[in-house]
Amino acid sequence: MHNLITEIDEIFHSKSIAVYGVSRKGGLGNILLQGFIDQEFPNMFIINPNITEPNVKIMGIPVFPDLKSTGKAIDLVLCSTHPKFVKDIIIESGEYGVKAVIIFSAGFGEKGEEGKNAEEELLKIARKYQMRLIGPNCMGFYCPETKLSFFPALPKESGSLGFISQSGSIANILAFSSMLKGIRFSKSISYGNAIDLGFNDFLEYLGEDSNTNVIACYMEGIDDGRRFIELVKKIRKPIIIWKVGITPAGSKAAHSHTGSLCGNDLLWDNVFSQYGIFRVYNLEEMISTIQAFINPMPVNNSRVAIISGPGGPAVSSADACEMNNLKLAELTQESKMKLQEYIPEFGTSMSNPIDISLQATFDPILEKSTYEIVGNDPNVDMMLIYLTMLTPRYKDLINLQKRISKPIALVSAIDVNVSADSFSSMVKRSFIHIRAKKVPQIINQMNHNGISVHPNEQLAAKALYNIYQFHNQSYSP
Amino acid sequence: MHNLITEIDEIFHSKSIAVYGVSRKGGLGNILLQGFIDQEFPNMFIINPNITEPNVKIMGIPVFPDLKSTGKAIDLVLCSTHPKFVKDIIIESGEYGVKAVIIFSAGFGEKGEEGKNAEEELLKIARKYQMRLIGPNCMGFYCPETKLSFFPALPKESGSLGFISQSGSIANILAFSSMLKGIRFSKSISYGNAIDLGFNDFLEYLGEDSNTNVIACYMEGIDDGRRFIELVKKIRKPIIIWKVGITPAGSKAAHSHTGSLCGNDLLWDNVFSQYGIFRVYNLEEMISTIQAFINPMPVNNSRVAIISGPGGPAVSSADACEMNNLKLAELTQESKMKLQEYIPEFGTSMSNPIDISLQATFDPILEKSTYEIVGNDPNVDMMLIYLTMLTPRYKDLINLQKRISKPIALVSAIDVNVSADSFSSMVKRSFIHIRAKKVPQIINQMNHNGISVHPNEQLAAKALYNIYQFHNQSYSP
Repeated sequence: MHNLITEIDEIFHSKSIAVYGVSRKGGLGNILLQGFIDQEFPNMFIINPNITEPNVKIMGIPVFPDLKSTGKAIDLVLCSTHPKFVKDIIIESGEYGVKAVIIFSAGFGEKGEEGKNAEEELLKIARKYQMRLIGPNCMGFYCPETKLSFFPALPKESGSLGFISQSGSIANILAFSSMLKGIRFSKSISYGNAIDLGFNDFLEYLGEDSNTNVIACYMEGIDDGRRFIELVKKIRKPIIIWKVGITPAGSKAAHSHTGSLCGNDLLWDNVFSQYGIFRVYNLEEMISTIQAFINPMPVNNSRVAIISGPGGPAVSSADACEMNNLKLAELTQESKMKLQEYIPEFGTSMSNPIDISLQATFDPILEKSTYEIVGNDPNVDMMLIYLTMLTPRYKDLINLQKRISKPIALVSAIDVNVSADSFSSMVKRSFIHIRAKKVPQIINQMNHNGISVHPNEQLAAKALYNIYQFHNQSYSP
Repeated sequence: MHNLITEIDEIFHSKSIAVYGVSRKGGLGNILLQGFIDQEFPNMFIINPNITEPNVKIMGIPVFPDLKSTGKAIDLVLCSTHPKFVKDIIIESGEYGVKAVIIFSAGFGEKGEEGKNAEEELLKIARKYQMRLIGPNCMGFYCPETKLSFFPALPKESGSLGFISQSGSIANILAFSSMLKGIRFSKSISYGNAIDLGFNDFLEYLGEDSNTNVIACYMEGIDDGRRFIELVKKIRKPIIIWKVGITPAGSKAAHSHTGSLCGNDLLWDNVFSQYGIFRVYNLEEMISTIQAFINPMPVNNSRVAIISGPGGPAVSSADACEMNNLKLAELTQESKMKLQEYIPEFGTSMSNPIDISLQATFDPILEKSTYEIVGNDPNVDMMLIYLTMLTPRYKDLINLQKRISKPIALVSAIDVNVSADSFSSMVKRSFIHIRAKKVPQIINQMNHNGISVHPNEQLAAKALYNIYQFHNQSYSP
């Protein structure tokens, strides 16, 4: 299958692009094009057979009535027209020597028998010209390294997350949500109805891609379960899958969405746990899980220390750890004695969960010292820290982490991206805030140091267990 | 028990307050006092035996060495000193005719046998003077109507949520988080070790309180299970309980937090489901559930219509509905035909879940028309709407709701409180945002019109099911 990897990699490294479906009056095609303009992709052409006069530009990009008129070699064609035009565009592209076509257009297999037949026809044409197809009914590729995009305003910085999605909108929402959480992509792939290149092809590709360290997926159905299992057995990177179509209602919805057959969910669940795949159930959980795997610190034991300013969440976090098969660490006597020097006598707890009380809000030394003592305790393998909101003390944690290298999951009860501006000036006076604009970069920095940020204690505990699992799982042969 | 209700109500309507534990150098006592100053409570005195000179003020509040020197009747005493001073303060308060003392000070029952004995002694003194105690190890009361507070910068506006919490920090975090979500309180009560007034007393009180429409609770343990069951059988308001200490590790943590015995969790779970109590597992879920009950629209059937711009979350939302015992509504032929006029032909779905595609992002008429047609469908009892982020189109929903009065749960994939400032100017160009500052008020307005906002589809579906349950449950006798 080495050819497949090379072929996909060549598509990602396309040097010139032609876009169908851009018009003077605007529409989805124009929005797609804006994505490439924002990434500053260098060699682009708009193909619109209705515009035959010379030297026309739309959105600053030159327009030609057909591929031939460009006079340039075209590696990749993007097709965002009404579905009835797609077949002719595929033929024209094949004849012109294009390597691949991304078919954004919907209105094929997901619409029933007739659409399925149309898809088969497209595939036959593509095969004839040895041209690859992505889609139809997809958003295509986002790859900041090579300036490909599927939406305007996506970040230009590359990262280590490879994402594969049957749903274009999920790829899009994840890209925007990830921006807030400082997560950057190596590649994001929306493959839609997958008449040619599909889930397994891209999974195999990302498994080999040296820029991708963690793989996340949104999946409705899959064609070749055996190949999927062979791949996940082979890939040694963390794989996170949001598999939907769990219930009859969900399966039916998936079928009308991308024409997928979802399969027996219990079977999927077994496959996922057998091969160490991390299953998630919504976007929020997917982002939590991705963050934990940006740089998962090696860990051999699952003894967690919980540090919480608020006492209530300390109790709830202890529940969350135990329910996720984690153990509560027993601090050494030495640590407990050191903690006594810093932690107030009353309204606190020096045994795990360590409750440093409301005092922590006003006493940065207390928080920092607790992190230091607990983080360095040899009985502590991982840390779960519950905060009311993110404060500038995140720096203490990063500095500590550089010495201890243990998985750390942080809960911020108030969403980390919420700006102090949402509060009254009275509240702003009471808390030391971080400016909202700086937060994504801070989370990015934390993630790269093995610290993930979560919206609740259950997701934080699950993230820690996932990291432990990843380093300590043995696969069935 | 009418006396109890009156007594608690009198404490909430205290006309004058004396605070112990405020000093020139600052500390927790000063922070508590700031809360009352921010609420503009009119008659306050600081009692500090170390300050004997006349006409001293701290933070603008007059200081006296003892209660007698104030020369005024004092209804309520707040005690935030070292625990060793508490007994004498209780005696002094009793002798001076104070009605109640809130003991913020920790270092009692939660610290073991000696602390338990000290608590019994305090209670004996209070009984002697017919004075009520709240705490120790608590934050006390927040009641904007009567200007009581437990923390600085809390909102002055009243609302319909009554909250009871064994943990002071949870009461505090909920108050701040609720601010962001536009939730306002009738009363918030942190009762700590509960040596006198405790959970059941406050539950009974809020059950009768005409300003409270929904009751939420954070609970570690409870003394009198039978009385609790009698109360929840009687109270006809929605009751939401975050009960922790589920696991052995959590129980142990709760015991060192407030000295609580958590009890058998399975038993709790049975009690909760038998008496229609809505159990939640973290702050995020608690806020979701509270929002849904600010004004839960009456509903007799559980047929949900899902509307989603993004197709992927439509599938996942269908799963979430079915997993929460909801049915997917079958739209009438009339609705489907009307939808065809607005929804694009391709990349969409007109059968439930209704997928209005990426087009919705750029076409406000499409979104509004879909809401109208689906909301008015007689086969639709409730709506689950999945958005990428909150847009000014929330107004369309509120206008529709005023005519249809059906429960609506909204998912915003990007936290509703996240400001556009977190995004680059390129992103801001692409989306119509709402200014972060306005969001709490908008959510407040939506909640009052039976529209709740959730961070994921599972919580949204659960909220809808909870509302259905609330209106259609039959209690065991």
